[in-house]
Amino acid sequence: MTNSVTNDVTSTITGQHFINGCWTGDANAFNSFNPVTNTPLDWQFANANQQEIDKAVKAAQSAFCQYRAKSPVQRADFLDAIADELQIDIAIITTAANLESGLPMARVQGETGRTCNQLRLFAATLREPLDPKFVDVANPERAPLPKADTRLSVLPIGPVAVFGASNFPLAFSTAGGDTASALAAGCPVIVKGHPAHPATSELVSRAIEKAIIRCDMPAGVFSLVQGATPNVSTMLVSHSGIKAVGFTGSLKVGRILADLCAARPVPIPFYGELGSTNPQFILSDILASNAEKLAETQVQSMIMGHGQFCTSPGVVIAIKGAALNRYIATMAETIAALPASAMLTPGIASSYQSQVDALLKSDNVELIAQGQSAEASHLTCPTAARVSAQAFLSSTQLQQEIFGPCAVIVECSDAAEMLTIATELEGQLTATIHGHEAELAQSQQLIEAVAFNVGRIIFNQMPTGVEVCHSMNHGGPYPASTDSRTTSVGSQAMKRFERPICYQNMPESLLPNDLKNDSVKIINF
Amino acid sequence: MTNSVTNDVTSTITGQHFINGCWTGDANAFNSFNPVTNTPLDWQFANANQQEIDKAVKAAQSAFCQYRAKSPVQRADFLDAIADELQIDIAIITTAANLESGLPMARVQGETGRTCNQLRLFAATLREPLDPKFVDVANPERAPLPKADTRLSVLPIGPVAVFGASNFPLAFSTAGGDTASALAAGCPVIVKGHPAHPATSELVSRAIEKAIIRCDMPAGVFSLVQGATPNVSTMLVSHSGIKAVGFTGSLKVGRILADLCAARPVPIPFYGELGSTNPQFILSDILASNAEKLAETQVQSMIMGHGQFCTSPGVVIAIKGAALNRYIATMAETIAALPASAMLTPGIASSYQSQVDALLKSDNVELIAQGQSAEASHLTCPTAARVSAQAFLSSTQLQQEIFGPCAVIVECSDAAEMLTIATELEGQLTATIHGHEAELAQSQQLIEAVAFNVGRIIFNQMPTGVEVCHSMNHGGPYPASTDSRTTSVGSQAMKRFERPICYQNMPESLLPNDLKNDSVKIINF
Repeated sequence: MTNSVTNDVTSTITGQHFINGCWTGDANAFNSFNPVTNTPLDWQFANANQQEIDKAVKAAQSAFCQYRAKSPVQRADFLDAIADELQIDIAIITTAANLESGLPMARVQGETGRTCNQLRLFAATLREPLDPKFVDVANPERAPLPKADTRLSVLPIGPVAVFGASNFPLAFSTAGGDTASALAAGCPVIVKGHPAHPATSELVSRAIEKAIIRCDMPAGVFSLVQGATPNVSTMLVSHSGIKAVGFTGSLKVGRILADLCAARPVPIPFYGELGSTNPQFILSDILASNAEKLAETQVQSMIMGHGQFCTSPGVVIAIKGAALNRYIATMAETIAALPASAMLTPGIASSYQSQVDALLKSDNVELIAQGQSAEASHLTCPTAARVSAQAFLSSTQLQQEIFGPCAVIVECSDAAEMLTIATELEGQLTATIHGHEAELAQSQQLIEAVAFNVGRIIFNQMPTGVEVCHSMNHGGPYPASTDSRTTSVGSQAMKRFERPICYQNMPESLLPNDLKNDSVKIINF
Repeated sequence: MTNSVTNDVTSTITGQHFINGCWTGDANAFNSFNPVTNTPLDWQFANANQQEIDKAVKAAQSAFCQYRAKSPVQRADFLDAIADELQIDIAIITTAANLESGLPMARVQGETGRTCNQLRLFAATLREPLDPKFVDVANPERAPLPKADTRLSVLPIGPVAVFGASNFPLAFSTAGGDTASALAAGCPVIVKGHPAHPATSELVSRAIEKAIIRCDMPAGVFSLVQGATPNVSTMLVSHSGIKAVGFTGSLKVGRILADLCAARPVPIPFYGELGSTNPQFILSDILASNAEKLAETQVQSMIMGHGQFCTSPGVVIAIKGAALNRYIATMAETIAALPASAMLTPGIASSYQSQVDALLKSDNVELIAQGQSAEASHLTCPTAARVSAQAFLSSTQLQQEIFGPCAVIVECSDAAEMLTIATELEGQLTATIHGHEAELAQSQQLIEAVAFNVGRIIFNQMPTGVEVCHSMNHGGPYPASTDSRTTSVGSQAMKRFERPICYQNMPESLLPNDLKNDSVKIINF
């Protein structure tokens, strides 16, 4: 069965870019790669050149004029159609994603479902908008000056470049959250396919292609450019026709692209979601009563996707003593039994390995446990280590994210030291506070300190598993994200690709439908 | 009367900075200046040094921890108290503003009223929030995974640096829109006083000081640093404790500061409102029927504040012919009768004069009229010139803003050329389309092209006079502003200084009051 589906993938993909409705480009630049077998796959892909980038952007600019005129319901139908087409093609898409990412089949199937749900959430939000429309009606009698009729709405900002993420080859890639939210806002999208899953990107693009045709959308509303060199990325974000960028990836690459966007003759917003250590603060009473259970939950969460979640809990902060020793003992036992696994790419594996090696060689850091020895060098082990709060606080190195299944347990002398860590945290996507309700009530200062450094503050739950809903925030103070005012998950993610416009004294007959008198609740404030 | 009030100003001001509740600094760096008499005033002011900037930022950071804990109603009371104190001190404030800016007394009085109204609008918005709260309640039964309780709110982002604008010494300065919206959001503010009205800044700061004491606010919630060198500005925006910047001023200075903010180790939002030419598109039928009236309205608008409004209409686009010639004839007659006037500063006057001289020397540009000859070199004249659409389109120079009472009439051959201008416009704060309803209905393409290049599209009204209300947008695509997603006028301006936070599974008793079950309308989407 899988072999036959793999053959279907092979017979479908061309390795080309999808630009303005056509498959184009010389597919001989780089190969897809299987990180589990540590060998290249047969599929070959193209590297976009300047002419191809120009063509994709020009098509997006042209499509923008037509796409922005589509009604919210037409855009919703388009998003729903993409979800439908993904479901129809789920067998080949998940087969490719499984082979290219090494993520288990059940995971990539679940992730495809989430990707479709995201698309449908934006569609639902377009059908039933959440935000009030502000209308201040005219008052010609007002003294000393008459009041004009003003009505506030939003416009899409223009063609958006989206960078697929290695760790979510579906939900944060070609038809993932950034693409879905930009399309929902009315913006054409050019995806720079992640070189770790180019076949998946092509197959997803083929599903989008079918939705474009089915919904009679302009051809340039979505393009895919493939590439395995940084040059493709810099050409894309530097192009004058690109009006915003969505990115999920490393701080290093994210900052380079953010700086390019800020330095353009016309600067544009750069939405980079750059990961974090997602600290787990464990209060004393719950640690005493639940040490073993908490340790098991921590290990389960930190090995999800072999630790390659943006929300993987990489730091645990608790007060040292017998209870924490029990927690650590359970953690050691649980981790020691875990097998080594492949990571998403050889580069991520070697980076993880060298970061773990450096951690374990650091002064004052003591190994708690590692998983079972790898039989091959491309497989990596879950790892936990312990360090004193003083050592942690004095080392920016120890506070950095290690992307993978690694956690550092920070042992505090007292609650004051825990508060210091919370206060001095770098910006994080999430942090969790574990505590019984009574001790939480006595930890207001800690809760406040944590809240001001994170995008999502969680109580007694693990951070992995980001709910896609209206009240989600996935972002946080820098360096968790490059724009803490926005979220990359949930319906509010659309707002990244809109900007306000005020219509003053516009004749009723010409107003956009959603601003006409019949559509708005006129409020005289 | 005025003399005695002037004496009150003199006996009140010290020329110092206001930092953490204290007046401090050596007031011997620069003098206040009267642009009408073109002579220095007696009042001397200090230039902030690095230690003083550090002190102000440290005080703001410390105040942030207390101020952010104040309830929305407490913040509203504080904003109302600032408005009250401004009204109490209006005689000395407006006397100083009139002497320093050269703006007529009636104008600075009106602007003080607007400044108070702005403060009260934010206070009212805090008392009755406009935006829905998103709450997705828990669903432990959901398969395959239970749904956590998530609730979305906002947090203030931290200490904000505000740069006063020369052209609105009250409404966009010390207690102006940026300060009011940052304080409303829960952020302490450090104002860099504009060197063109330092006495006004000090007197307004003294009113804020009284409100701080009256409302028992932390001392560092507001500081004023004076300075007449660029160094003060760069020290302030580069300080690691500053979390956002509000700025109104020139593209040149705005871009320098924006680039500094983007290049920081931790980049921060820079909200620069950088002005625009606010084009006036006049359709054929209304031009034929209303040429004289339209020309008079244009001149009235472009000479408001001697053309020193961000929204001053500096470009008029119409189709050439008899009607436009009538418009130009009326304009010529009206402008020729106007006196020369002082500008806000000698620098603005000489810049205006050299830009007008360059304009009139440009190829294909023909003078329509200038106001009466100035008796002194610091006084400048209203000016209008005409140019063909082809010449205008081929010269980026002609498309630049000339800050002051100058307008360029662009003569198009036909409607297609007018559409080309609308499409190729740089980002603008506003543009107006003048037309009878029937011809507007036939100009959908023009309306759409204009809308996508402006923050506010106006019909049959002039852009000067920005309403302070919920539905206002004052901003626009770059270079009109550095962040087209935001407004610097109206209640939505608060959002520039907030960022979202998601509370997941937080015990009901610990939730912020506005997220508790009793406060929110729980919607299960």
